[in-house]
Amino acid sequence: MSLQERIDQTIRNVPDFPKPGIQFKDITPILEDPKLSEEVVAAFAQFWKGKVDAIAGVESRGFLFGFPLAMQLNVPFILIRKKGKLPYQTVSYKYDLEYGSAEIEMHVGAVKDGMNVLIHDDLLATGGTAGAAAELIKKEGGKVAGFSFLVELEFLKGADKLSSYSDVVQRIVSY
Amino acid sequence: MSLQERIDQTIRNVPDFPKPGIQFKDITPILEDPKLSEEVVAAFAQFWKGKVDAIAGVESRGFLFGFPLAMQLNVPFILIRKKGKLPYQTVSYKYDLEYGSAEIEMHVGAVKDGMNVLIHDDLLATGGTAGAAAELIKKEGGKVAGFSFLVELEFLKGADKLSSYSDVVQRIVSY
Repeated sequence: MSLQERIDQTIRNVPDFPKPGIQFKDITPILEDPKLSEEVVAAFAQFWKGKVDAIAGVESRGFLFGFPLAMQLNVPFILIRKKGKLPYQTVSYKYDLEYGSAEIEMHVGAVKDGMNVLIHDDLLATGGTAGAAAELIKKEGGKVAGFSFLVELEFLKGADKLSSYSDVVQRIVSY
Repeated sequence: MSLQERIDQTIRNVPDFPKPGIQFKDITPILEDPKLSEEVVAAFAQFWKGKVDAIAGVESRGFLFGFPLAMQLNVPFILIRKKGKLPYQTVSYKYDLEYGSAEIEMHVGAVKDGMNVLIHDDLLATGGTAGAAAELIKKEGGKVAGFSFLVELEFLKGADKLSSYSDVVQRIVSY
């Protein structure tokens, strides 16, 4: 069986989360399978090897595969967090959600001028948060090398939204 | 230089965070050093090798070193998150904070009966959250194998609070 098929069979479909009518793709059973998890890290690493200077992981599930990937590629790992969580001086970006807005932050100085940064999260839905992460990278003088996700919800067309930052969007499985 | 000394020199001290008078130990510069990060994972792995059946990581900085450690030890990684974040059926535990209270959750079925579970977080302060995590493990029929932290704030005596669950508390650096 391919990696994609095994991931698909391991993901748990949770109906009506976070709200009625939405089927949530729960990746936590993958984390409970260390061998499968290692294969996921390897699939990310194979794609990005030699192409990035740093990886920015989006809180909090983006920390899961993003940090092992950064160690494997031997590049810095940078945290992107919700407002108010990072202790040092930050740069922030506010963006619209379906209802209301959200704001994410990154430490000043984490991205160096001209750095090629991969933005990583576990899930690509509408692309709102990943796009906001790209804005943070650009604000700090970095370049967006691309995006990587474990799961894409293709019908939400998030990759279209991200195309203004980079056309390189890796997703291991798409629904 | 020892691992402890290099970690100490890499951690950034941030005054007055999260509130005036507190000096925060910011571990994000460690994450930006992939070689040092790998050494941290190795130090955790050396201590726990062969002694645990699973690792529970506490949201969200506990995901950072906890998940690579689980892969290295070839055991499942279990998420402990703030209330409302996990999509599937959960078991939860409410605990008191200095002001108010907090509630954490874990997926039902993640801990199997009799499983020896290591609880991991980046920082041991008062031990309130780690103790609550231990309650969740016990509720689900697991055993607390011990605790591991990157940083301990020794003057807050968190390890004393955790001693009713396990005396095995690994901390890489203590302040």
